[in-house]
Amino acid sequence: MLTREGCPENVLAIKDALEALEGRWKLLILFALSTGPRRFRQLAREVSGITDKVLAKELKSLEAHALILREPQDTFPPTVEYSLTPHGRSLEKVIEELHSWGLLHRKKIMGK
Amino acid sequence: MLTREGCPENVLAIKDALEALEGRWKLLILFALSTGPRRFRQLAREVSGITDKVLAKELKSLEAHALILREPQDTFPPTVEYSLTPHGRSLEKVIEELHSWGLLHRKKIMGK
Repeated sequence: MLTREGCPENVLAIKDALEALEGRWKLLILFALSTGPRRFRQLAREVSGITDKVLAKELKSLEAHALILREPQDTFPPTVEYSLTPHGRSLEKVIEELHSWGLLHRKKIMGK
Repeated sequence: MLTREGCPENVLAIKDALEALEGRWKLLILFALSTGPRRFRQLAREVSGITDKVLAKELKSLEAHALILREPQDTFPPTVEYSLTPHGRSLEKVIEELHSWGLLHRKKIMGK
């Protein structure tokens, strides 16, 4: 058990994490980037259900939180590549645990 | 690396997890309950910043996802106690990883 009742530092750490990752898209985008850099259009395809507008907004927020890197490529037509920063990569364990739990939850809910 | 590009089952599992835990409050409520059962008023105090209305809504959603148990107590005046189900307890690792990462993120953002 990691917590003691009313320990505000633990609660703050979780609040910070939830704020940086809020919404339903950010972890899915980071998950897509965990196998390597992607261009905007690739991400739009892989993160199914997201609109271009929301994807652009979420990428900006992830960049502001130092979780991803945005690099314009020297190509024609111009493209932009997104990749995880080391800090973004440090979320891998969170994503793995969430993934394992998601599989369990899916079984539990479907098995009802 | 847990993922292969375009593996829809992995993405679905993460989507499921995020849906069950969406918003900024659910994990904080589960975190508070991880040290033991709580009454409504105790939770309202411990999860600082939450309003009674939102807390009631979030508790209902957590109960619907089989993550917490709601038990009316045989007291006067009547009280209700909330506790984690075994399924809710299975989120402990997710919360631990999120907590560790939140501490790291706090250092990173404040150290800027």
